[in-house]
Amino acid sequence: MTVKKIRVIQYGLGPIGIATANLILTKSDMEIVGAVDIAKELAGKDLGEILGRPEPLGVRVTDNAELLFSKVKADAVIHTAGSRLKRIFGQLEEIIRGGKNIVSSAEELFYPSPENAELAAKIHQLALEAGVTVLGTGVNPGFVMDALPLTLTGVCQEVREVHVERIVDAGARRYPLQRKIGAGMTPELFQEKIAGKVMGHVGLMESLYLVADRLRFSLDEVRETIDPMIAEKPLKTVYFDLQPGDVAGIRHVAEGLREGRKIVTLDLRMYIGAEAPYDSVRIVGTPDISLRIDGGVAGDQATAAILVNSIPAAIAATPGLKTVTDLPAPYCRQS
Amino acid sequence: MTVKKIRVIQYGLGPIGIATANLILTKSDMEIVGAVDIAKELAGKDLGEILGRPEPLGVRVTDNAELLFSKVKADAVIHTAGSRLKRIFGQLEEIIRGGKNIVSSAEELFYPSPENAELAAKIHQLALEAGVTVLGTGVNPGFVMDALPLTLTGVCQEVREVHVERIVDAGARRYPLQRKIGAGMTPELFQEKIAGKVMGHVGLMESLYLVADRLRFSLDEVRETIDPMIAEKPLKTVYFDLQPGDVAGIRHVAEGLREGRKIVTLDLRMYIGAEAPYDSVRIVGTPDISLRIDGGVAGDQATAAILVNSIPAAIAATPGLKTVTDLPAPYCRQS
Repeated sequence: MTVKKIRVIQYGLGPIGIATANLILTKSDMEIVGAVDIAKELAGKDLGEILGRPEPLGVRVTDNAELLFSKVKADAVIHTAGSRLKRIFGQLEEIIRGGKNIVSSAEELFYPSPENAELAAKIHQLALEAGVTVLGTGVNPGFVMDALPLTLTGVCQEVREVHVERIVDAGARRYPLQRKIGAGMTPELFQEKIAGKVMGHVGLMESLYLVADRLRFSLDEVRETIDPMIAEKPLKTVYFDLQPGDVAGIRHVAEGLREGRKIVTLDLRMYIGAEAPYDSVRIVGTPDISLRIDGGVAGDQATAAILVNSIPAAIAATPGLKTVTDLPAPYCRQS
Repeated sequence: MTVKKIRVIQYGLGPIGIATANLILTKSDMEIVGAVDIAKELAGKDLGEILGRPEPLGVRVTDNAELLFSKVKADAVIHTAGSRLKRIFGQLEEIIRGGKNIVSSAEELFYPSPENAELAAKIHQLALEAGVTVLGTGVNPGFVMDALPLTLTGVCQEVREVHVERIVDAGARRYPLQRKIGAGMTPELFQEKIAGKVMGHVGLMESLYLVADRLRFSLDEVRETIDPMIAEKPLKTVYFDLQPGDVAGIRHVAEGLREGRKIVTLDLRMYIGAEAPYDSVRIVGTPDISLRIDGGVAGDQATAAILVNSIPAAIAATPGLKTVTDLPAPYCRQS
């Protein structure tokens, strides 16, 4: 018996896109049938070259997604080309009209925040019309601060509070991540950037809204605070050389309050020099549950993994814009 | 707008059945429309009396399930009336033919072991014909030693080994559980019972088979060992008074081997006097993941919770005998 392989198009060839493409190449039941990147300088190159492989793969990168979708049959597109719904809406529309299911790392696609409700509704409508599934997922949002705590509440009779902490050592992470957490900035520049709303982890509020909605928490107030984590000693990464007093990273906290009480807190600290990274979830309920993952679920490996592992369920799902809680939880798809 | 309540029949009124029924009564979007128990002495009694409620509920317990199913419309039956597929097959058949979806705590229904494959196939066929979903779930099997580790592998590119430990303090648990782990027996009687295959935790092998199958581990060998945990000092519960040397509980280990290496181990210790209960999961893979739940997910509260929380997804699913990995993970259904 020959099992038909799952045909995947990789859309976006930044560090995460490269990691997902390389991972798909290890799976015996998947194949890459196309690659898209908006960067003109990548167009026409063989994907193998961009992935750092010794041999060409016979898949040429294109910046003309529409043409690719019209010519190439595929079961799913892995989309790793942006965080903000406004910026990627056109890309998603093109993929959906091309009749392909989408698994995207776009943080704002994970769950519609109130300000994105209209765009999300449009995507949902387009997906219904085209008969495809659209899923936003990843490690954060997508797993540690939302799906995992909700999964834990599956064994609870009642949940009163949910508290998640995630401490990430950014020193070992990719350059765009180190840059986006403000590493190397002065605290003054960091504060300016916060005021200009260009700092912070996209997706934290999306996690908060999902957790609160699924648990039917009616919140009186949601709060978001972003503060710099300051280097206390000299710190060095491949990309940055920090002096004491420099910004080493970020602390981004999202809180949901009811009657003055914080019933959901998502506390994310990503900084260079975090010495004992971990993820923890504390459920206050019946029963209480307290979970800890020493070392944390971090790294681009994990992000690439959950995107690829989510492909089969996204293909099998009914059409529309879905949230991870709508689909069976992904598990490692081994070859 | 009036939202239609989910109508549930409770089948089985032992400690778990009583806990699920009481939990359903707290949910504003669910209602109990029937109750079944095979015990003649319960027939005709008001369910409220059996649940220890001050007021009658207007639902009379019956031992005639077939008649009840023909008369009463219901969306789902919670079945908590046995562990072994052979023993409960007739009950399940009656419920399926009655056109009701099933969420059952029956351990052997969780995932078909090789020896139950034929019965499971029959149940699947019956469910397809009747257009209903049949789901076996719970905390163990159903969550800690199978669904939770598999969920963690969702962020893994590759998984080489899965190791789960579950240490349960049985001293605070219900009488049937304390009895089934051999509490108060002499080690000799315990060994006799093991030889007669009447000891051990039903469902551990089912967890092992599910984990191995989903991760495509081809195992050369599966092993199961059952040993007594011996009391080292006097121990007292509501039901038992143990002397040093008495059996305090059980250690039940299931292992899957490939090329002589244990690549799946499920190590369950349930005994009176366990001082620091916990659940832990260790994934060896890319990346490695190490999770710990201090205190563990234990207690009949959690079992009742996951059964009730699983009802909506079981109703929404396509017909057939399903495994928890086929459905969206349950989360706490709050009122």
